[in-house]
Amino acid sequence: MNIVVLGAGNLAHYFCTALAANKQFRILQVYARNPEQAQYFNQTFQIPVTSDPDAIIRDATIYLFAVNDGAVSELASLIQRPQALNIHCAGSQSTQLTAASGNRNAVIWPIYSITKTTQPLESIPLIVDGNSPEAIELAQQLALAVSDNVRTLNFEQRKYLHLNAVLVNNFANHLMAIAEQVSREHQIDFEILMPIINQTAQRIKDQSPQQLQTGPAKRNDTATMAAHLELLSAHPEWQEVYQSLSASIAAMYRPEQA
Amino acid sequence: MNIVVLGAGNLAHYFCTALAANKQFRILQVYARNPEQAQYFNQTFQIPVTSDPDAIIRDATIYLFAVNDGAVSELASLIQRPQALNIHCAGSQSTQLTAASGNRNAVIWPIYSITKTTQPLESIPLIVDGNSPEAIELAQQLALAVSDNVRTLNFEQRKYLHLNAVLVNNFANHLMAIAEQVSREHQIDFEILMPIINQTAQRIKDQSPQQLQTGPAKRNDTATMAAHLELLSAHPEWQEVYQSLSASIAAMYRPEQA
Repeated sequence: MNIVVLGAGNLAHYFCTALAANKQFRILQVYARNPEQAQYFNQTFQIPVTSDPDAIIRDATIYLFAVNDGAVSELASLIQRPQALNIHCAGSQSTQLTAASGNRNAVIWPIYSITKTTQPLESIPLIVDGNSPEAIELAQQLALAVSDNVRTLNFEQRKYLHLNAVLVNNFANHLMAIAEQVSREHQIDFEILMPIINQTAQRIKDQSPQQLQTGPAKRNDTATMAAHLELLSAHPEWQEVYQSLSASIAAMYRPEQA
Repeated sequence: MNIVVLGAGNLAHYFCTALAANKQFRILQVYARNPEQAQYFNQTFQIPVTSDPDAIIRDATIYLFAVNDGAVSELASLIQRPQALNIHCAGSQSTQLTAASGNRNAVIWPIYSITKTTQPLESIPLIVDGNSPEAIELAQQLALAVSDNVRTLNFEQRKYLHLNAVLVNNFANHLMAIAEQVSREHQIDFEILMPIINQTAQRIKDQSPQQLQTGPAKRNDTATMAAHLELLSAHPEWQEVYQSLSASIAAMYRPEQA
């Protein structure tokens, strides 16, 4: 099956790498708005490229919109192909995001921060959805050519999964960014925290994070919590983070207190 | 050098495992309040044990207080040995926590969640402090017999490091516990998040978390943030967590907005 990849960022790179040697799916063309990025793709993958929307090949079976969430709709309106399957990668958005391009719309959404160095062999979870059983099935086939970890979730579930990804990636990363800055301000080597950060992520493979919870908020150690808030007095926004997380831990483990 | 280990929990287990074959340090005795736990230590490590405070050996060089933070002071007052070095493991506490036992006081504090299965070979960071250069040096020697990752930090730094450990362990774990519950409530397999959780922890080995930050709060995507808050409407305490972390991210990356 023939694919046109629209976009030349990390996601496009990931799909091109994954499909480079695939027999079932063949990337006909990469469209990149920026001619330099287009050239990079041509040199790296020997795929024909264009940076002219009018030169986008019109008879592919699949159009893969590997661009920023906000750019999908506009690009879809540029290439109207009622018979092709449009796939976008904006997991928290409806399949209708590509509706301006045609009637068959689907999503393939990696639950991972894809960068230029991401190796497709890592079994990254790919979430699939579509606006018809046929659209879902074809998107699943493509996803299975890229990863062996493919799941189908409906729009409602995808919204909650997107929220969850924000919690465990963006927010957990911000906690580490605060710890990094606290370390810097007090001449502590941030490196000291690497093993426990790694442990925090690793141990939930075998045990539920809800069961693993420890710390002053869990055991209602008000003296330690007050001392920590005092240490954060120069950063009121971090005090808010500390208090809201401690209150949420209290609500989860001591609901009678809430 | 002869050591008496006071306590029979995970920390005592960790030190006994680490020192089992050591030539420089020898554990003379384990004191466990609970006779059954004492027997477990005797059977596992062939170390003499007692559950009678009066039978604690009085002429050891080092007394290692491997008990809960709250129990250290009381236990220290039971075994007064002015010449011995007292070491406790409550990292966020002053070395004076064992002062009731004698004049030479130190800390060895693992930055890790120590459990029965923790292998000492994992190079767990051990933080050392003491109330004199001699106390620090002897505690360092003992720590180096247990781990090759030993650092000395003063009391002020230890307090901030303890706060940091709460951020990256207790609070990050709670975010995962929320995600686990959201997944359960919406029939999403929590397993889907394992690769990105692992990635969040792994990638900061090479890059600063402050540089790695992404997500709706970072890019001021107010529509997505409002949608997420709506998804959390049944859990006001999680909405608070979401808002405080988003506000803190805004303050870190867009201080002009604060």
